[in-house]
Parts: sequence; C-alpha cells; structure tokens
Amino acid sequence: MSYNDSNPFAKILRGELPCIKVAENDQALAFMDLMPQADGHLLVVPKEAVAEIFDLSDVALVASARMAQKLAIAVRAALRPDGVFIGQFNGAAAGQTVPHVHFHVIPRWEGQPLKLHAREVADADTLEALAKRIRAHWRAH
Amino acid sequence: MSYNDSNPFAKILRGELPCIKVAENDQALAFMDLMPQADGHLLVVPKEAVAEIFDLSDVALVASARMAQKLAIAVRAALRPDGVFIGQFNGAAAGQTVPHVHFHVIPRWEGQPLKLHAREVADADTLEALAKRIRAHWRAH
Repeated sequence: MSYNDSNPFAKILRGELPCIKVAENDQALAFMDLMPQADGHLLVVPKEAVAEIFDLSDVALVASARMAQKLAIAVRAALRPDGVFIGQFNGAAAGQTVPHVHFHVIPRWEGQPLKLHAREVADADTLEALAKRIRAHWRAH
Repeated sequence: MSYNDSNPFAKILRGELPCIKVAENDQALAFMDLMPQADGHLLVVPKEAVAEIFDLSDVALVASARMAQKLAIAVRAALRPDGVFIGQFNGAAAGQTVPHVHFHVIPRWEGQPLKLHAREVADADTLEALAKRIRAHWRAH
C-alpha cells in the first residue's frame, strides 16, 4: 500500500481533522477509533509518513509498541474486558483500510464477536466518555 | 490468563520441545507456527515467563516488536504475500490459546481467508522449507 498524505490519519496528525485523543508523545498519537469494532477500540498512529510497518523507523516502531502496551494496560484497568487484542495490518489483503501505518488496541469480551471494521461511526459522546475512562488509567511512564 | 510453565512455548524455550527456528536473540525466539493460519505463519516468543503483554518488561517488549518488524520484512521478501498481519492476543476472549505472551506474524494473500487457529498440524518438511526461505531474508540488524 503506497502512502497518500490525504489519508484521514495524516489529516488528524496535521490537525486538519479532529480526533478523540487518549495519549500523545513526540513519536505517536493515540485516539479512539471512530468506527470501533468493540467498546474502547483505540488506534496508535506513528508520526511518520509511512504506509506500512516495513518502512517504519526504529524509533517510531519502539514508541508505538510502548504506547500500545500502555494503552492495553489502561483500557484493561478502565473497562475490565476479558481480553485485549493488539493488531497491525499491512496491505488491503491483511485488512488495512487507511494507508498510514497504525496499531489497533481492541478490548474483547467473552461471547461478543468483533464488529465489522469501518462500517458504522460511533456516537461522539459515547466515544468521549470511554476515552475519559481510559485516560484516567493512562500512565505515560 | 495466568502463567503456567508447562505450556508448549515455555518448553520450547527450555529446549524440551523442538521448534523450526527462524531467529533468536537474548530476549526473544522466533519460529514457525506448527498449526499455521497461512503459509509462513511465524511466532515471536519473548524469553520471559509472562502470560500476557500487560506484564512484559520493556526490554522484552522492545526486542519482540523489533523482531516482529524484521520478520515481517523477511517474510514479505521471501514469500511475496499481498499483505502481512501482526497480531498479539491477550486472554482467551481475545483468541489467546497458549499462556505465554507471543506475537503472530502472518502473511496474507488476496482471496485466501485465514485458516482457523490451532486446528491442523502442518507437514514438518513444508514448514522447514518455508523457514529456509524466510531465514535467507532475515537481517538481525
């Protein structure tokens, strides 16, 4: 998948589109997925203009992995899911829909299959309320 | 999911079970999944007695993320898939089956859905032949 700087994550990183932010540092931004596959579905987006993980710099890779782990810890504490899935998709054949490298952090509950990706936009107030609960458990270090 | 040191990945790390190894360093081991969901399905197993990513040390997390990225690059070069999925499952509700933290690196091809996980053991010669092709493209640094 080739990079295209008009993709929605690039626009969010440039401040041209809003997001419901949960965490940020010099290397990466984390926010609520607008079309969540489960409650508390988060995205980690590295601040590099790269489509797939193959081309991500080491510093951005490491920062993204650390942020994903910390978000998994925070979302587990906040929402008490039965499990947490971390996924990273490269190429349409692997399920990638936005051509900017990103990591999914998705809480899982027993008996609740994941919703289809990118089909339905969630209510903004609901997302903000979930984000507030997750932020309360976020520890940057 | 609680840790149990009789799990198969712990046995592989202790040398009590064999594996078809692709890469190894002080922090993590990568080998072919014996019940692959697609050709070239790899696992990265950190060398820490930890069930889920929440409890993984920073040094093991970083080493595992780096190894997963390098394996994704190697398997793409070796097998030319249409995409690569990297996944990390915590808790049975998220799809975790072995209680030792691990990362999946799975090549994806258009029109080929993933096989069900942990259902069918692959032919050892076939796995070894795939591993040989992936090792030829592995770059530790």
